[in-house]
Amino acid sequence: MSRIAYVNGRYLAHSEASVHIEDRGYQFSDGVYEVFGVRDGLLMDEEYHLERLQRSLRELQIAMPMALAPLRQIIRHVVRRNALRNGMIYLQVTRGVAGRDHPFPSPSVRPAIVITAKRLNEERVRQAISKGVSVITMPDQRWARRDIKSVSLLANILAKQAAREAGAYEAWLVDQNGMVTEGSSTNAWIVDQNGRLVTRSLGSEILPGVTRRVLLEAARSEGIEIVERAFSVDEARNASEAFISASSAIIIPVVRIDGQVIGNGRPGGLTIRLRAAYDAASKIG
Amino acid sequence: MSRIAYVNGRYLAHSEASVHIEDRGYQFSDGVYEVFGVRDGLLMDEEYHLERLQRSLRELQIAMPMALAPLRQIIRHVVRRNALRNGMIYLQVTRGVAGRDHPFPSPSVRPAIVITAKRLNEERVRQAISKGVSVITMPDQRWARRDIKSVSLLANILAKQAAREAGAYEAWLVDQNGMVTEGSSTNAWIVDQNGRLVTRSLGSEILPGVTRRVLLEAARSEGIEIVERAFSVDEARNASEAFISASSAIIIPVVRIDGQVIGNGRPGGLTIRLRAAYDAASKIG
Repeated sequence: MSRIAYVNGRYLAHSEASVHIEDRGYQFSDGVYEVFGVRDGLLMDEEYHLERLQRSLRELQIAMPMALAPLRQIIRHVVRRNALRNGMIYLQVTRGVAGRDHPFPSPSVRPAIVITAKRLNEERVRQAISKGVSVITMPDQRWARRDIKSVSLLANILAKQAAREAGAYEAWLVDQNGMVTEGSSTNAWIVDQNGRLVTRSLGSEILPGVTRRVLLEAARSEGIEIVERAFSVDEARNASEAFISASSAIIIPVVRIDGQVIGNGRPGGLTIRLRAAYDAASKIG
Repeated sequence: MSRIAYVNGRYLAHSEASVHIEDRGYQFSDGVYEVFGVRDGLLMDEEYHLERLQRSLRELQIAMPMALAPLRQIIRHVVRRNALRNGMIYLQVTRGVAGRDHPFPSPSVRPAIVITAKRLNEERVRQAISKGVSVITMPDQRWARRDIKSVSLLANILAKQAAREAGAYEAWLVDQNGMVTEGSSTNAWIVDQNGRLVTRSLGSEILPGVTRRVLLEAARSEGIEIVERAFSVDEARNASEAFISASSAIIIPVVRIDGQVIGNGRPGGLTIRLRAAYDAASKIG
């Protein structure tokens, strides 16, 4: 079955789906995105994603391309048209098409919206989850507003590429004080020697991950002690467990940081427990 | 006459010109650009722009989309097809179209290239040059590699928009040490109380402007003393002259910084002299 994409009001063959060369997303990375997990054909944590989408747009003064109700319907329609069972919905909104000029265009320019579906490489994810992955650390070169889920991702892809070239799955980015901010496309977590769950607190330095949010709820209901604070690279290398979170694979255990083995080199107990707890905390519909 | 754009091997009506929704320029701002000034139908400082284009691509490990000789021909063809006399050629190269995934795609993925022509708003530029403009200063929120002329410009457009909302023409961006890096789409210059021309030295903090480069050559041949170093906001506010440079308008005098009048509030003498010297130093062909 060929893939179908939703682009500015039309359902198109994915291979033919295009946007204008002067879409500000293309010329200025002037847009935001969301990635919704889909499980058994149902959307995961839709409310939190839509809430974050609206926040990102508000921060950039981009209008919502349509009301929430039709948007929800279109997303579901893209899931159905692609017969998507397990995978992701990618949604991108940009400031729209206007002659190239840095300032915001006239308010009459309509935001552009693209929604696509993608199957999960389930075997690859299963492997990563069962064996755990390696991460490397490197300087965080991104811009100052990482709390906005924008498509201004050049620093992120360079970091991810550096990780892959080093044989690692992800790069943990490190601020000027030697503290980990987050991964290039994931939030970063450790479990300290006292069994406390540690992840960086929200702020302009990191993305407010939807999976991060649900995992914190899950940890709370499990009675796991949580500390939201920055942690250093050294602390991470000496953690008893570590993992990354993202909407695509939820939790992937980290068993090696900069070549140093974490814990016993296998996915940690708390990590595995949290993964199960996520299923109970996540809202699917 | 309707505008014509060059897109990946084809000349298209500008209004119909599009790129695929999974062009990495759209999803990751994974691309670079150049803006060539055109005067009397001829390209300005073409060699320097092509040199910088190649450097930007090399830094991001994106292949040149074609050899230099055909690229030069296509650029000229776009000038002719658009009957462009005075204006700009915009050229964008991205890593190409690939299923969305952060790491670089297979080397078999071809870079994408778009070339468009734009007329100059000559009246607007003439006004800015003759009267001078205001700039505001604000924190530099951009990523760490401003030396790469990438389309990852979200921080730049937010700064430009903030300037316009403040009634200013440009925003000068300020690093964590209180020193000016550059404008949101221009290089920043001052003339100190001793008549020395001051502009920030090259490095990852600023774009290596082509007009900046030609102006330095012009100043040297005029015997003007040049100091390439960072300058503070305070120093700028107390400068005897100030101006911005860009390939579109070459030099625009700055007569007000954060509301404070520079010099006598009119374009400075050295600024006007440099503008004339630019014409002699610039290579047109």
